[in-house]
Amino acid sequence: MKQAKVRLYVEHALGEGQTVPLTRDQAHYLFGVMRLGPEAELLLFNGRNGEWLATVAEAGKRGGCLLCHRQTRPLQCPPDLWLLFAPIRKARTDFMVEKAAEMGVARILPVKSAHTNAERIRRDRLQAHAIEAAEQCGGTFVPPVGELRPLERVLAEWPEDRLIMFCDETLAGARAGLGAAVRGKGGQGGKWAILIGPEGGFSPAERARLHALPFACPVSLGPRILRADTAAVAAMTLWQSTLGDW
Amino acid sequence: MKQAKVRLYVEHALGEGQTVPLTRDQAHYLFGVMRLGPEAELLLFNGRNGEWLATVAEAGKRGGCLLCHRQTRPLQCPPDLWLLFAPIRKARTDFMVEKAAEMGVARILPVKSAHTNAERIRRDRLQAHAIEAAEQCGGTFVPPVGELRPLERVLAEWPEDRLIMFCDETLAGARAGLGAAVRGKGGQGGKWAILIGPEGGFSPAERARLHALPFACPVSLGPRILRADTAAVAAMTLWQSTLGDW
Repeated sequence: MKQAKVRLYVEHALGEGQTVPLTRDQAHYLFGVMRLGPEAELLLFNGRNGEWLATVAEAGKRGGCLLCHRQTRPLQCPPDLWLLFAPIRKARTDFMVEKAAEMGVARILPVKSAHTNAERIRRDRLQAHAIEAAEQCGGTFVPPVGELRPLERVLAEWPEDRLIMFCDETLAGARAGLGAAVRGKGGQGGKWAILIGPEGGFSPAERARLHALPFACPVSLGPRILRADTAAVAAMTLWQSTLGDW
Repeated sequence: MKQAKVRLYVEHALGEGQTVPLTRDQAHYLFGVMRLGPEAELLLFNGRNGEWLATVAEAGKRGGCLLCHRQTRPLQCPPDLWLLFAPIRKARTDFMVEKAAEMGVARILPVKSAHTNAERIRRDRLQAHAIEAAEQCGGTFVPPVGELRPLERVLAEWPEDRLIMFCDETLAGARAGLGAAVRGKGGQGGKWAILIGPEGGFSPAERARLHALPFACPVSLGPRILRADTAAVAAMTLWQSTLGDW
């Protein structure tokens, strides 16, 4: 929702009296698009040092400099939840990354499953979407977006102390709410990941493998077929309201 | 997720042996875009008579005719849940309507609140999005989309037996989960609506009025600020998993 001041993500360290140099793109955005002048106030965050009030110290066409004054919000880290998803059409993949950053996940990991059409992703563009979501929604943390990796390899190297909430659209609703899955695995408060399949779902071999994994919890998302991006938001909501910080 | 056969929404009644005439746009889609020929099979639904297997009886450039054979799925109505939302930017409004149709609501009602920028909506375009979501996600029901009406008037004429789940981003998380709200109001199994405010939230006067309504349940969606479209999907997930048919 609307922020009174411009919020900008920067790579630079933030602290009292710290000067923060601007890239050409940042200078264009602040001085060309948002029309900030000398002494104008804005909010900065870098995903590590919380949110800081800063002012424009130097404004140029190709660069500039900001001055950090005081911390306005401490760093607020999300729960230890990862989102694994199979990339789908561009707009819907962008959307999933944006929503994951908004709703509070710690890492975003694109995976290539049997029915995934995408051969590659633009990791830098997806990361920019996560940053923009944090800028607009008042976040102080930005989940890192990983490279696209085969689901099979990701599962082969999986850390066994991290449970996977695996959304299986073939499950009957009554059989597998998240509450039941959690009681079965005793996973409250622990490390988790949500795994969302591609359009077309998981292959039978993938589904069988996932069901056999000791750290995987199959969960139903109701009697209707949901698009992958809808399923991602619904799964994050269920997890956050059952096990997370909502 | 992927459907093997083309699914088409039609206005016409469906039943055994029923012939279904096609509009010019439908003929173009089926014969020009999807390349269906005579005798090709497809699935039809109209939001009232369930889903039916049909074949192409007559294929032309500007029209054609389908023949209905047998019902493949009965009509599955969603729970008696309405979604009220303040229209925001076009893409995000489209998205909310699509998600509402996917996730299962009975009616979609755009409302104009104090901070709503939109003066009008394209009702027909939003309705087309709801239809497309049902076509793609295997739905047999299509929620009707209402005209944009002032929130104040909608609340003045509100049916008192329908509870409103009202997402208040100023609430502390611990104070108002949906479970607590439901126990307080005794609303399980009843008629409900979800109300989502615009970017910028409700005005103080609107918030005070909503809190004073006996049929309104304020609910928190966690410690992060969510965009309106994210809040809509999260609220529908919470409702469906707590009170609905998930």
